[in-house]
Amino acid sequence: MKNIAVGIDIGGTNTVMGVVTEDAKILAEASISTQQYVELADYISALATNIKTLLSKAEGYNLKGIGIGAPNGNFYTGTIEKAPNLPWKGVVRLSDELKRHFDCKIVVTNDAKAATIGEMVYGGAKGMKNFVMITLGTGLGSGVVVNGSLVYGSDGFAGEFGHVTAVENGRMCGCGRKGCLETYASATGIKRTAFELLARYNDASKMRDIPFSELTSKDIYTFATQGDKLALKAFDFTADILGRKLADLCTVLSPEAVFIFGGLANAKELIIDATKNYMEKYMMPVYKGKVKVLPSALLGTNIAVLGASALVM
Amino acid sequence: MKNIAVGIDIGGTNTVMGVVTEDAKILAEASISTQQYVELADYISALATNIKTLLSKAEGYNLKGIGIGAPNGNFYTGTIEKAPNLPWKGVVRLSDELKRHFDCKIVVTNDAKAATIGEMVYGGAKGMKNFVMITLGTGLGSGVVVNGSLVYGSDGFAGEFGHVTAVENGRMCGCGRKGCLETYASATGIKRTAFELLARYNDASKMRDIPFSELTSKDIYTFATQGDKLALKAFDFTADILGRKLADLCTVLSPEAVFIFGGLANAKELIIDATKNYMEKYMMPVYKGKVKVLPSALLGTNIAVLGASALVM
Repeated sequence: MKNIAVGIDIGGTNTVMGVVTEDAKILAEASISTQQYVELADYISALATNIKTLLSKAEGYNLKGIGIGAPNGNFYTGTIEKAPNLPWKGVVRLSDELKRHFDCKIVVTNDAKAATIGEMVYGGAKGMKNFVMITLGTGLGSGVVVNGSLVYGSDGFAGEFGHVTAVENGRMCGCGRKGCLETYASATGIKRTAFELLARYNDASKMRDIPFSELTSKDIYTFATQGDKLALKAFDFTADILGRKLADLCTVLSPEAVFIFGGLANAKELIIDATKNYMEKYMMPVYKGKVKVLPSALLGTNIAVLGASALVM
Repeated sequence: MKNIAVGIDIGGTNTVMGVVTEDAKILAEASISTQQYVELADYISALATNIKTLLSKAEGYNLKGIGIGAPNGNFYTGTIEKAPNLPWKGVVRLSDELKRHFDCKIVVTNDAKAATIGEMVYGGAKGMKNFVMITLGTGLGSGVVVNGSLVYGSDGFAGEFGHVTAVENGRMCGCGRKGCLETYASATGIKRTAFELLARYNDASKMRDIPFSELTSKDIYTFATQGDKLALKAFDFTADILGRKLADLCTVLSPEAVFIFGGLANAKELIIDATKNYMEKYMMPVYKGKVKVLPSALLGTNIAVLGASALVM
């Protein structure tokens, strides 16, 4: 009997899950809103129902387990702890809660770490011993691989590069602090930048006709490709700040490559190439020209679901 | 026959070397000025002469090799590459040059990495899998241990935490960039801070009677313990900026502890405790209260010489 695993990617906005085969094929997928479930019990119940429906579409396979990537997901304890972008506060015993519904192995990790494992196993980081993965979504997630192993740190929470301070006393972050990198370099961050630019400059821009709650990073990209000056400036500012902080990160880790995943990574010249240029500009001479900045080789796939499933395969 | 190794610590100011036994006893030590040798050939010659004199004091032992810690020392190639604080520019083939004088194993690494190995083997980091070592000397050196291994990165140059940007467009750094952490948090950095404070404020201070070229970080410490307001402010500013950048580092690596070595680390409350307090203040909630900040357990010993010798033992 062929093996399958369930991979679940819990994001600040949506939770996406899939049933994945040993050769990385997604047999069935589903998605629920994360935001709408203010009560954890309701969320767990919706999650379990959806997983059972998915598994019913994959009969004749042997279920190896459920792998979950979640913000602040702890590999060591199977919990989510104090996740700034999720509705549930404190420590969520995710693995224990799901075990009431499923009699199988359940592994939890950070959503970005799951993506990192995905990139390492199926993507562009195959064979690399030292690399960094950056996911630009609602927030900025990251995974760090050193000497061929994912860095969990002493408590399982290493790799929160989105929460290094990019600007002192800068924008309010969901984590309760100010100026975190993800308040600038993420889908939400670039929107905040766009609104700052609309306020500061007088240039005409299609962005002036869209309210904050409706503008997306994809809109900003579309306008930028049409020559919208402020949309272009928003991308430039984002690449500058991300490149600057990556230069710092390379100074500590000296990775072979930085992979960028997420909707924003589709803006190749405006994000990938621009970030690389700024990173080189700010970098200490000894590292210049050594570190690749690449779009994830798995753009367009659900890398987090694949990576999460790989945790239990 | 008992084994010995030569451990050499090349600093921006001085080069210290020692003959070390397997049980970490330093049989003989010597020191030469690094700064005074503008020509590499003269330096190598002085180094070789001193090592031979040291070895003549340790007859009846078996020489296992020579371990060297140097700024930008590369473990993979045995070279020093573009070291900002040394007199020789470009790539220095240190291991090859010394092999003309000695027929033994010669291993080169970063001076701070040698100290990190010293702390791991003989000091307070025994048994720790994830920790960071910070050496506050002429500059700021660092070593990072993840999953029990020293992080060399893809090119051998990982761990240059002294060159993360602490202040945008800040102080000129020896590396050619501006605002690097070591221009603030180091023996030289705190002196620069003291002079900024003398310029900005009107408070009386004994530091007003000492020229820049003569003031030492030890003087500043002495004045601070005597209640000198500006000397105390200089320490507070240093701890603030170091704590802030350590909070960022912990966000990426989540280490068990940060060890601080170097003359400044003797200022326990003013550097160790103050840095820990600022680090906690700036830290993301999930890491608060988890990371120890400790003085090196090998303060007062020549940890870099011990660590360098451990490279070939």
